Amino acid sequence: MDNSKSKCVLLTGGAGYVGSHTIIPLIESGYEVVVLDNLSNACKGHIKRALMPDVARGPHVFKTTGNEGQNPVPISQVEKLVGKPVTFYNVDLLDYDSLSKVFDKHNFCCVIHFAGLKAVGESCIIPLTYYRVNVSGSINLFQVMKEHNVKKLVFSSSSTVYGEPQFLPITESHPVGQNLLNGYAKSKYYIEGIIQDLCNSDKEWFVIILRYFNPVGAHPSGILGEDPTGIPNNLMPYVAQVAVGNRPCINVFGNDYNTVDGTGVRDYLHIMDLAEGHVSALQKLQNANENGAIAINLGTGNGYSVLQVIDMFSQVSGQKVKYAIADRRAGDCASSYCDASFAKSYLGWQAKRTLKEMCEDTWRWQSLYPQGFSTKK
Amino acid sequence: MDNSKSKCVLLTGGAGYVGSHTIIPLIESGYEVVVLDNLSNACKGHIKRALMPDVARGPHVFKTTGNEGQNPVPISQVEKLVGKPVTFYNVDLLDYDSLSKVFDKHNFCCVIHFAGLKAVGESCIIPLTYYRVNVSGSINLFQVMKEHNVKKLVFSSSSTVYGEPQFLPITESHPVGQNLLNGYAKSKYYIEGIIQDLCNSDKEWFVIILRYFNPVGAHPSGILGEDPTGIPNNLMPYVAQVAVGNRPCINVFGNDYNTVDGTGVRDYLHIMDLAEGHVSALQKLQNANENGAIAINLGTGNGYSVLQVIDMFSQVSGQKVKYAIADRRAGDCASSYCDASFAKSYLGWQAKRTLKEMCEDTWRWQSLYPQGFSTKK
Repeated sequence: MDNSKSKCVLLTGGAGYVGSHTIIPLIESGYEVVVLDNLSNACKGHIKRALMPDVARGPHVFKTTGNEGQNPVPISQVEKLVGKPVTFYNVDLLDYDSLSKVFDKHNFCCVIHFAGLKAVGESCIIPLTYYRVNVSGSINLFQVMKEHNVKKLVFSSSSTVYGEPQFLPITESHPVGQNLLNGYAKSKYYIEGIIQDLCNSDKEWFVIILRYFNPVGAHPSGILGEDPTGIPNNLMPYVAQVAVGNRPCINVFGNDYNTVDGTGVRDYLHIMDLAEGHVSALQKLQNANENGAIAINLGTGNGYSVLQVIDMFSQVSGQKVKYAIADRRAGDCASSYCDASFAKSYLGWQAKRTLKEMCEDTWRWQSLYPQGFSTKK
Repeated sequence: MDNSKSKCVLLTGGAGYVGSHTIIPLIESGYEVVVLDNLSNACKGHIKRALMPDVARGPHVFKTTGNEGQNPVPISQVEKLVGKPVTFYNVDLLDYDSLSKVFDKHNFCCVIHFAGLKAVGESCIIPLTYYRVNVSGSINLFQVMKEHNVKKLVFSSSSTVYGEPQFLPITESHPVGQNLLNGYAKSKYYIEGIIQDLCNSDKEWFVIILRYFNPVGAHPSGILGEDPTGIPNNLMPYVAQVAVGNRPCINVFGNDYNTVDGTGVRDYLHIMDLAEGHVSALQKLQNANENGAIAINLGTGNGYSVLQVIDMFSQVSGQKVKYAIADRRAGDCASSYCDASFAKSYLGWQAKRTLKEMCEDTWRWQSLYPQGFSTKK
């Protein structure tokens, strides 16, 4: 199939936190979106409400026949925001045949590959599952893409591939893959390496690897956000849960780092900025006559400390966020923030939203869904 | 199943060059061997004769029902040498269910994981295939092992994980994974990383990673040897094919390296020494009360130049081996040889056979099978 004029994009893992938010600016930019997700994180979490239709509200009834990928369903929460249906397949990347059938059915111009497990701590406990889902799943996807002559890809990588920063700000030429301490980071690093070889072997491929720093926040409507299952792994959702009264207190791991106030500094990035970065990447893939694999940092370029985030969240929410200083955690570094200049020069993209907006939008979502999507206030 | 007293070993890729030779000392040491192979390299090559029964000779008829893994067949060439049948399954590691059935059927004490694609040049042309077979295949295997509580493993890694040597001789603490130029080396490096995480996550695993230097030679009987398909990738089989008259001349890539005679130096290792190294590793896995992943170089610790190998082969074969000096090849280094002392102290193993024996045994096999296994002289 000739896909040079297609505006149809496949989003693997499109029902996850980053994927679901990215659908919105994609559709606003005129793309047709097809979402593929195995709903592995979805059943207990926000996806059920975010992407599955509210059965009581109808008229769309969520139906699948297992993993056959034959039942695209319109989806609700995102659909409300964009005002049109989004095609959805309940397919696992490890299911080669079903994946292939999805490609038979659509004429994709590009794939944005969000799908993957992402909890750093969990990857140390069940590494094989992480490698299977992330690495074997990606290999399957790339093979199916190749067979269907879809050779443009945006890949969700992570700043964790840099390991402990050797210098700041982190540029794209910072060493990668050294002393990575967990299976999550290694799986992303391995997939980047596979993509590099793939592009070396076939000059028709053009891949943009996006190395996310710390995505936070929610859609400003408050009806889409991050709803981690169980105890949040990341700072912002934890702070939000303390602010809303779900958890009594947040532990701050170390206040004796060499930073502005002794607590760890990270490059937080508003989820809608990140979402828009994917649109820019996609436009680059379609419009630039290039090939090969290119890695790009997506961050603001600014670092904020844990206490600065807690303080800002307290201000915007009007809630006192109680915290306790705890010991440093193994594997944590003092500071990590990126040089975001390459994204600006190459993609014409830069983050626009402030820490205040990150906190405000998180708080709006958390206030509407104090227990997460499963229980609207 | 309690496998602490089992002497039954699974050999993935047991029909390949290293695997088939390893069966012999394993059986001589009292192990029961089960071979699993997808025969992907076998149909055109030596396996057909080495491990599949000679139909004309009977009585064993090679039968499979595809990949169902239900038809262990006795095997011929190896069987002749060891004097007993070897159970064989035509199963692909990517076929999770069939693999699992093999584990249901046997009480394995350990797995020796030979299976994988191994041509460096080819891995640059079809990298996805290499990653799929080597990495996804290994992940599947480890998952099935875990589910069957088989947590002792010998893994066939490669000296290529060291990349260009930063110092000589190469010890096991030499950096790995830096500037690897091909998918083969990277796939081995990734699998080592996955094994490391697996062992960190579960202290019941005990894995010996064997980093092979340059295996050459054949069983001294002359009825088992290396039979590459197409143009040989490696020096010794190429030299043997020139000596036997199949090819007119061998190209020597570069004679201006900083070595004894300007040609590249490598650590050649007799295949039967290598085979015995696996027995030592297996005995260590069974007898030592240890856990974790440990990497061990298998080589002689001596380097020989290309011209030294050609010269020795000419001497033992009595044939003039014609060669031509060609340009250096990208990615080749001047010298690579290992520090073999850790294998000696930890496994009690060291290579015993000389370069002369490597050439003699290769020549015996090549003389008996001038066109490879498919056409006995």
